[in-house]
Amino acid sequence: MTVADIYSLAEEGLKEIEEEIACSSCSGLSYINNIADSIFKSGGKRIRSLLLLLAAGLSGYTGRRTKALGAIIEQVHTASLMHDDVVDNAATRRGVPSSNTLYGNRVSVLTGDCLYTSAFLKLLKKYPTPIVSLIVTTVNQMSEAEVLQLQKTSDLNITGQEYMQIVFGKTAALFSATCASGSLLANPADMRRKNLLYSFGTNVGCAFQLQDDLMDYLGNAKVLGKQPGTDMTEKKVTLPLILLLENSLKYPKDYNAIKKLFLSGGDKSEKLGRLLLWLEKYGIRPKAEAIVNSYIKKAQKILLRFESSAYRDALTYLTGSLKQSQTVGRELSEIVKNQLIKQSL
Amino acid sequence: MTVADIYSLAEEGLKEIEEEIACSSCSGLSYINNIADSIFKSGGKRIRSLLLLLAAGLSGYTGRRTKALGAIIEQVHTASLMHDDVVDNAATRRGVPSSNTLYGNRVSVLTGDCLYTSAFLKLLKKYPTPIVSLIVTTVNQMSEAEVLQLQKTSDLNITGQEYMQIVFGKTAALFSATCASGSLLANPADMRRKNLLYSFGTNVGCAFQLQDDLMDYLGNAKVLGKQPGTDMTEKKVTLPLILLLENSLKYPKDYNAIKKLFLSGGDKSEKLGRLLLWLEKYGIRPKAEAIVNSYIKKAQKILLRFESSAYRDALTYLTGSLKQSQTVGRELSEIVKNQLIKQSL
Repeated sequence: MTVADIYSLAEEGLKEIEEEIACSSCSGLSYINNIADSIFKSGGKRIRSLLLLLAAGLSGYTGRRTKALGAIIEQVHTASLMHDDVVDNAATRRGVPSSNTLYGNRVSVLTGDCLYTSAFLKLLKKYPTPIVSLIVTTVNQMSEAEVLQLQKTSDLNITGQEYMQIVFGKTAALFSATCASGSLLANPADMRRKNLLYSFGTNVGCAFQLQDDLMDYLGNAKVLGKQPGTDMTEKKVTLPLILLLENSLKYPKDYNAIKKLFLSGGDKSEKLGRLLLWLEKYGIRPKAEAIVNSYIKKAQKILLRFESSAYRDALTYLTGSLKQSQTVGRELSEIVKNQLIKQSL
Repeated sequence: MTVADIYSLAEEGLKEIEEEIACSSCSGLSYINNIADSIFKSGGKRIRSLLLLLAAGLSGYTGRRTKALGAIIEQVHTASLMHDDVVDNAATRRGVPSSNTLYGNRVSVLTGDCLYTSAFLKLLKKYPTPIVSLIVTTVNQMSEAEVLQLQKTSDLNITGQEYMQIVFGKTAALFSATCASGSLLANPADMRRKNLLYSFGTNVGCAFQLQDDLMDYLGNAKVLGKQPGTDMTEKKVTLPLILLLENSLKYPKDYNAIKKLFLSGGDKSEKLGRLLLWLEKYGIRPKAEAIVNSYIKKAQKILLRFESSAYRDALTYLTGSLKQSQTVGRELSEIVKNQLIKQSL
């Protein structure tokens, strides 16, 4: 199994989705379409499109109804990024200025609303209610998780359960809905397969977000495409810090020093450097990687309940690739994206 | 016809909707529910609930399906206020601090998203697709209109058509959908009545927003419940200014002085005072009132196409009351609200 194999499996579908994104308009206002286009075109990994196509294929569906649905899911994802940019006051996104830097918070909020509602309207027009409900439920979960994350900012007593609730809502919920939608396209009545694929998406999404949170400490700026230490700066308490606090609990001096350091202001790179030393001292990297791996394994185990196929192999490989790369899925998604752009231009 | 008559017609329904708002939860997170509650409870005119009940009654429907629908429509309205607060950086709403002042922009955006999506999910669960589509389409129009408004900020060349597009989207779209939903509850197949009530809602909503825009210049703070001159300060070009520019166009010295004044900074009350003198000089008040009146008359004319009933009388009276009050619908809605709160406590 190579990236080229995955690409050839999903090639047609990805091109169709890209075509749909390019052609379908989100609004009657060209101003909104231009903003949406600039974000769509700035890239993104299209990992959700790929998951949709492979999950549909795994369920025996290779028809054209993935085309609009893939574009709609990417549109929902883009809307969530616009609202996230407001939320985090992010200055860049994917290495380029974020929408709120370019257009202001006001336009980002409302353009995000337009993208969400236009996506819902396309769903209502073209897809059965179970798929509509699944996607709208997901956006609800995504928003709730972001609120919970805000509420838990600087909260060093966040529980593992609360953290995983955030991880699920932020990333895994849309992965789950995407994979389950692929199954619903094949057969809306097959609840067993739908639930299996939903659960597969949850595990892949959690692995993806946990790896992302880990790399926000351990990755380097060039490969990440963004400065590491963002979560630390925004005082989001994520996997590495949670593990660090858990493991240092028996050593009050260290424990308190870590807490104090995390909550302190001061120079970012110096602070990150000092936290990395603590992570090293308590062996957090392998511990975190083991957790990411456990989600990957659960996801791959679910795939074994489907009959053998090229789609199953592709999803197994894709899932496994999450742990190898510094930025999650980069190896695969970059190549897919480049090939896609090359061929569609 | 008195306010008491309207109240007795809608009394049961309004109480049920209020009960639904109080009991139904918007989220699994108590933090979100608390925010939503604090906004719901801070009041609002419930004018949309009243329109829903009267439009349903006019169409022959007086059953209980208005209960959840009224609460959902109020929830959609609340969500839009939360996003508007971010957008306008409003410090107060209905005389109390706005959600973004209390909770921050971040929480307002995401709680708004939760309210929107939880409202859509309730619709999907309980109401037929035409009603769901109508409401989602409306939220889309509302967001687009707000983007257009932002785009046209400080733009003294805004056309009347663009301004009315904003007026429609900001206010009239949800009035239209509310009234049309009332008809759909009665008979989902009766497109004639649905379209008439949609159009009625559009005209009432436009009258409502135009009067609001007029009072933002001519009203006084005590009655308005907010400082007048907000649109001027935010450099939103609305009805009074559009008429003023139109009427002074032949007098370049005045015309240019008005433009310069509107775009200038400086002391708010002094600036408003000087603009009021210009409005006086060019007789803008009666011209604006004539326009508001024309929408009221169009709305009332549509009602004549329904057979005579207490509901028709109530809607006719309600529509007419828009022009009499300084804050739109205050006379009626305040009384309704006070009676409602008195009786439900």
